[in-house]
Amino acid sequence: MEFSEHFIAMEKYIEALQESICRGLEEEDTIKFREDRWIREEGGGGKSRIIQNGKVFEKGGVNISSVHGEMPETVAAVMQTEPGPFAACGISLVIHPLSPRVPTIHMNLRYFETVGGNAWFGGGIDLTPFFPCPEDFRHFHLTLKKACDAVDDSYYSRFKQECDEYFTLKHRREMRGIGGIFFDYLKNDVPHYFRLVKSVGDSFLPSYLPIVRRRKTEPYSEQDRLFQLIRRGRYVEFNLIYDRGTLFGLKTGGRVESILMSLPPEVRFLYDWHPEAGSPQAEMAEYYQPHDWIG
Amino acid sequence: MEFSEHFIAMEKYIEALQESICRGLEEEDTIKFREDRWIREEGGGGKSRIIQNGKVFEKGGVNISSVHGEMPETVAAVMQTEPGPFAACGISLVIHPLSPRVPTIHMNLRYFETVGGNAWFGGGIDLTPFFPCPEDFRHFHLTLKKACDAVDDSYYSRFKQECDEYFTLKHRREMRGIGGIFFDYLKNDVPHYFRLVKSVGDSFLPSYLPIVRRRKTEPYSEQDRLFQLIRRGRYVEFNLIYDRGTLFGLKTGGRVESILMSLPPEVRFLYDWHPEAGSPQAEMAEYYQPHDWIG
Repeated sequence: MEFSEHFIAMEKYIEALQESICRGLEEEDTIKFREDRWIREEGGGGKSRIIQNGKVFEKGGVNISSVHGEMPETVAAVMQTEPGPFAACGISLVIHPLSPRVPTIHMNLRYFETVGGNAWFGGGIDLTPFFPCPEDFRHFHLTLKKACDAVDDSYYSRFKQECDEYFTLKHRREMRGIGGIFFDYLKNDVPHYFRLVKSVGDSFLPSYLPIVRRRKTEPYSEQDRLFQLIRRGRYVEFNLIYDRGTLFGLKTGGRVESILMSLPPEVRFLYDWHPEAGSPQAEMAEYYQPHDWIG
Repeated sequence: MEFSEHFIAMEKYIEALQESICRGLEEEDTIKFREDRWIREEGGGGKSRIIQNGKVFEKGGVNISSVHGEMPETVAAVMQTEPGPFAACGISLVIHPLSPRVPTIHMNLRYFETVGGNAWFGGGIDLTPFFPCPEDFRHFHLTLKKACDAVDDSYYSRFKQECDEYFTLKHRREMRGIGGIFFDYLKNDVPHYFRLVKSVGDSFLPSYLPIVRRRKTEPYSEQDRLFQLIRRGRYVEFNLIYDRGTLFGLKTGGRVESILMSLPPEVRFLYDWHPEAGSPQAEMAEYYQPHDWIG
């Protein structure tokens, strides 16, 4: 199929974004990302950049992919479109820092088009902290709000609410972190939503690096680390039970190692564990519920 | 609703089985199971027995439950029956030993009946070892075969095949362990299948304890432990992506801590990790594919 000009522009954008994000993160650590390229038999492929065992980043991946071909009916149903030729590209990243004082972060931006002229964007950014630093959480949300406001000042509150709902572990009635923004199936005005996606993508480093810099050298206790490992367990629960991208990727034959790079390197699952009353960890419970960070 | 005599007999059986299994396992360790009882608002409840931080058993649960009430339509669809009053009881256990030389084990036996007279059994046992001890694997399968043969000598091969298929991580094309037996929706002859379920339940300790005894004092290396932690990650993947009981329980409001006691206490997820060629860990790959242990 012919790719639209937007598809080609999005491909170019995510490639440059992957590069600038990896460089920005590498400046905070002493090791570099490694790169794995892969080819999709039916068309397209991807470039995974992985960091592991850093002083700051225990594990992380910044992956881009661009795939095309004939869409199976099962996939078409999920994507709310007709079977036929399609193309999709996107960037997906998850960073698990070593220190429980530095939050885990996730971002995903993707574009999808069919030969019939359907096209849409989806994506978002969300933060998963393990220690109460409300000023960091406010900085994160404010940066995302500015990125949204630059395109339409109704977007932040709408996408924040979608994020609060999406990143919820329904069986536990709690969020996996403090949310951020999330959107899907944004269609009918490709140039407009492409501006949004670029504005969000460009806000990744400003939303996250100041927090990393501020927190990466702070000392932490064994209790802080244990809480991080247990909350990482919730991250695993979310990604394997609810995350649409993960399940869709695994069930449609995506590259397993690239999809599951999102899982944290070390995790604990303890029976009926609760933080000590009055501890910083106990305080986190209120932040794992929807919260107004701006008003 | 009125419970059938079989329901009451099954409840009695699983209660006694929980007791004898916990005692048998406690004899191999220096600590005891703790007990948590819980009540289900809509009818019934359960008794969870949990062991954690033992010298032999790092984490494990032997849970029984008996619930009844009005079945929601969504549940009826999954259970292949009509909405209406129902009752269900069962035992579910997962044991994660500390030593990578001792395999993880899982068993589940359950009985379900409706007021309309539908009734069936389901369940199985499967073993997840982390070190190649083919004589142990053969002992395990032979014990299960004997338990099946006592009721019908066509059962073992049929239920073993179902187990190989069920406990497969489809996205990785590998089993989570070395299988065992698995069956579901066994109906139309309650007394006959009840005999089977009792024969399987009674085979739990003889299938597992000799292996625990033989292996629990064997020394192991850091490499052995790392492999165990990574394979436990596959266990998590299976339980959260595929396991019907886990997903059913979480989505129908079951007690989260009792359901997720099945998750291993410590887990690692590393990017694109492979065991060293020629190592005992590399040898395990062949056992994580369907294998004939008896012939």
